[in-house]
Amino acid sequence: MAPTPSDIRKARKRLAGVAVLTPLLESSFLNDLVGGRLLVKAEPLQRTGSFKFRGAYNRIAQIAEDERGRGVVAFSSGNHARRGSCRAAFRDSGLYCHAYGAEVITYDRYSEDREAVAADVLKRTGGTLVRPFDDAGVIAGQGSIGYEIAEQCREQRAEPDQVIICCGGGGLTAGCATALQDVIPGLVIYSAEPDGFDDTARSLVAGHRLGNDPAARSVCDALLSERPGELTFAVNSRRLSGGLVVSDEEVFMAMRHAFDRLKLVIEPGGAVALAAALAGRLETQGRTTVVVASGGNVDADMFRRALDAAG
Amino acid sequence: MAPTPSDIRKARKRLAGVAVLTPLLESSFLNDLVGGRLLVKAEPLQRTGSFKFRGAYNRIAQIAEDERGRGVVAFSSGNHARRGSCRAAFRDSGLYCHAYGAEVITYDRYSEDREAVAADVLKRTGGTLVRPFDDAGVIAGQGSIGYEIAEQCREQRAEPDQVIICCGGGGLTAGCATALQDVIPGLVIYSAEPDGFDDTARSLVAGHRLGNDPAARSVCDALLSERPGELTFAVNSRRLSGGLVVSDEEVFMAMRHAFDRLKLVIEPGGAVALAAALAGRLETQGRTTVVVASGGNVDADMFRRALDAAG
Repeated sequence: MAPTPSDIRKARKRLAGVAVLTPLLESSFLNDLVGGRLLVKAEPLQRTGSFKFRGAYNRIAQIAEDERGRGVVAFSSGNHARRGSCRAAFRDSGLYCHAYGAEVITYDRYSEDREAVAADVLKRTGGTLVRPFDDAGVIAGQGSIGYEIAEQCREQRAEPDQVIICCGGGGLTAGCATALQDVIPGLVIYSAEPDGFDDTARSLVAGHRLGNDPAARSVCDALLSERPGELTFAVNSRRLSGGLVVSDEEVFMAMRHAFDRLKLVIEPGGAVALAAALAGRLETQGRTTVVVASGGNVDADMFRRALDAAG
Repeated sequence: MAPTPSDIRKARKRLAGVAVLTPLLESSFLNDLVGGRLLVKAEPLQRTGSFKFRGAYNRIAQIAEDERGRGVVAFSSGNHARRGSCRAAFRDSGLYCHAYGAEVITYDRYSEDREAVAADVLKRTGGTLVRPFDDAGVIAGQGSIGYEIAEQCREQRAEPDQVIICCGGGGLTAGCATALQDVIPGLVIYSAEPDGFDDTARSLVAGHRLGNDPAARSVCDALLSERPGELTFAVNSRRLSGGLVVSDEEVFMAMRHAFDRLKLVIEPGGAVALAAALAGRLETQGRTTVVVASGGNVDADMFRRALDAAG
């Protein structure tokens, strides 16, 4: 079952004082560029460098005491930094002291089945599997961002016309959309994805879940899902107005603008929503657009490529 | 006269909803590195990319209505980005609509006297001179950061043992020290400066204001003051425990760590306090250290030099 607004509000309480209340940033320069107001939710500043901490923490905090000792198995399509951040999430959550181990098992995303890898570990440990996005507790944790955005908009005297959310498996999108439309009924929300991994955009058009071409490649390593989640798509197909798709070049340009104007390090996958706004994938003139920058776990080599994009 | 705690509290109210409430960031990795807790106040996320917006806004907001029409003259030793940010400060303050112009006049910091340049403009316009640091209204604005730090420490269950603040003319340091010691009497506070521009560190030892060698050069272009301000030194000589000094290499290393672990872009001058903590300029083992990262206005070429520093 997908999380209700009440589940997400509870997640937000669990996360208070644990997760960073990341700022909603704004720059005159970027406002001028889009001809309206552009507000950027800065989740790279979140503990472990991405929104994923929220979902992981909220999910793990709800595991029964007597099951905790057997540990948790989580997987992620992310890069090294993200895998490192996954480990840190357990430690930072304070649950590490409850005998959680933090073993990192790598797999090849193109040749190995991570579900099978995880099943092997579960057979060995008897622990709890935490899926990266198709899990109500995880979605509820990510959704806490939606309530924060709504509050911060009020504080900053902004009335959002539209919101764009980076979308891999769709957990962040589903959670935020549920929370945002709870506070602002009918708010227009789009997912953003990179070229070649536009499974949510195409699934929204088709009305059912479609996969990506296994041969597709992208610099957005945090968003390389195979297809939308079952739970997440059930939510997103009801709540989204559509899916926006951007190129690697547009992603690098967005990362460069975030460096210049927001002083924020965004990873490629975390920059697709900002890229969609800056590349004009939807009308921004005279409107207030909120984008979620979802993470900042990018290495120096990749970041240099963004700095090389014309400023 | 130096600002009182009450002046700074008033400044904070003026800035509420106008300035960004920048987060106090923490990273497990950096905590492990210093053997204690390290909390980083992220002023690069401030409007215009640095703390300077706070002081400028607070000062300008107090100019009498009938004097506003004649404009404001401000100067800064900062780089191009910082001069641009000064211009933006007036526009973002909403005071631009009160007929403020935004003319930028460049001068050579090594051969020209900026006081004389400013005096020429004032003769022409009859406007108000706003000094970059030796001004009670400006110091009070910067001091709002001190109250935010104290509150955020409470929220994050941290009891600061020591605070390090980036120091050019000393306005940020004086304002923050006044606010912090108002809330936490006797708190240990240090200034941080780059090699060759350690005028405050040496002046604190000497007990009176000393200048820097005019031949000195540093990558920290935001901190190239000639000597401590009269007002600021009167405050800092009473409140600081000493001045810490770091090298350009230590600054680049701090910028690199901020990129890797905090996802924050810090300019060289804004990274001296973090550099002092990471380079072990004071005991951090088992202690809670707060550092102010004061700005993020750095261009891509300079940032590449920081990325080249071993991570």
